[in-house]
Amino acid sequence: MKISAKNQLNGEVKNVNLGAVMASIKIEVEEPGLITALITKESAEGLGLKEGDKVSAIIKSTEIIVGKE
Amino acid sequence: MKISAKNQLNGEVKNVNLGAVMASIKIEVEEPGLITALITKESAEGLGLKEGDKVSAIIKSTEIIVGKE
Amino acid sequence: MKISAKNQLNGEVKNVNLGAVMASIKIEVEEPGLITALITKESAEGLGLKEGDKVSAIIKSTEIIVGKE
Amino acid sequence: MKISAKNQLNGEVKNVNLGAVMASIKIEVEEPGLITALITKESAEGLGLKEGDKVSAIIKSTEIIVGKE
Amino acid sequence: MKISAKNQLNGEVKNVNLGAVMASIKIEVEEPGLITALITKESAEGLGLKEGDKVSAIIKSTEIIVGKE
Amino acid sequence: MKISAKNQLNGEVKNVNLGAVMASIKIEVEEPGLITALITKESAEGLGLKEGDKVSAIIKSTEIIVGKE
Repeated sequence: MKISAKNQLNGEVKNVNLGAVMASIKIEVEEPGLITALITKESAEGLGLKEGDKVSAIIKSTEIIVGKE
Repeated sequence: MKISAKNQLNGEVKNVNLGAVMASIKIEVEEPGLITALITKESAEGLGLKEGDKVSAIIKSTEIIVGKE
Repeated sequence: MKISAKNQLNGEVKNVNLGAVMASIKIEVEEPGLITALITKESAEGLGLKEGDKVSAIIKSTEIIVGKE
Repeated sequence: MKISAKNQLNGEVKNVNLGAVMASIKIEVEEPGLITALITKESAEGLGLKEGDKVSAIIKSTEIIVGKE
Repeated sequence: MKISAKNQLNGEVKNVNLGAVMASIKIEVEEPGLITALITKESAEGLGLKEGDKVSAIIKSTEIIVGKE
Repeated sequence: MKISAKNQLNGEVKNVNLGAVMASIKIEVEEPGLITALITKESAEGLGLKEGDKVSAIIKSTEIIVGKE
């Protein structure tokens, strides 16, 4: 199955911590990868984003899905 | 300000595409980085996740916040 | 109150699992329903999505809000 | 690839609406399916959720990923 | 219908900006309100969060649902 | 670092509840603040949203990031 979420960063599991309901998975992202962020045009202009800018992609851990071959 | 979202991947903006309301920002993640995914214990066990597993971190583009120094 | 999130699938609770902070609720969706997914134009074109395609709507469990009459 | 997001509802694309950056995809969910919602224990207790309750699973359209075989 | 998302901040619409697919709604939050954030225990400890701390609740605009009586 | 998520509501921590993996942080939002919600044009029109409308901004607790100076 192909999925619409194109942002897929490959890495290795470094730690698995199981709670009663949730689990926290630490992943070392090892390969460079191209990701797409969708933000408001207003925020893009507010930050003055343009090609070549050094930026950080910030992601809340609850938003990450784990895939395994 | 320090923020609770520890997942911050550094990279370079490769493309900015402005719509009427939204903007799509392509970012080349260039450095390795450790990220944390929070999933259900049930999913972690269903995938049999353990240290050393090769996995993908899958992220919908609407979930990514862009930070710039 | 009417809310902007139009995607509301009706079902029955099959299981409630309480942790210290979180709870996992299993819901059997019983009725057909029309839902809307917002993805990038680029992903829609990449998947070649068109009327009549058989697809899956994939949703991380942290993203689901539970409503009860 | 197997993914941690177990909530996958099968359906048929009814409409594709392309904007400049975003696309809206309407999907008719046709089969019953079991989905899991993760909410706070406090909310689960506040709603008094228990087996057999009739509920709605409410999902913002930006949170839905589309998969296609 | 009661919903599990307890975070509801009351306010007034200041601006509506319609795109082809998306709309941006600016809301002036006018009343104090108690909200709950769910983060990892690790992040809570990393920030040293305790009663009385002055903090910011940061929310990506795609995550906000609008309700109207 | 400046971030694209412009919605930042200032407040005071009222309670910290630690679980095994997750933590629930209650924050009293004390100051008025302007926030932006991104919804579909269809939902905005369905609710008939216009300047001056009294609305609620509804946010699932898993979507809130906590920032601290």
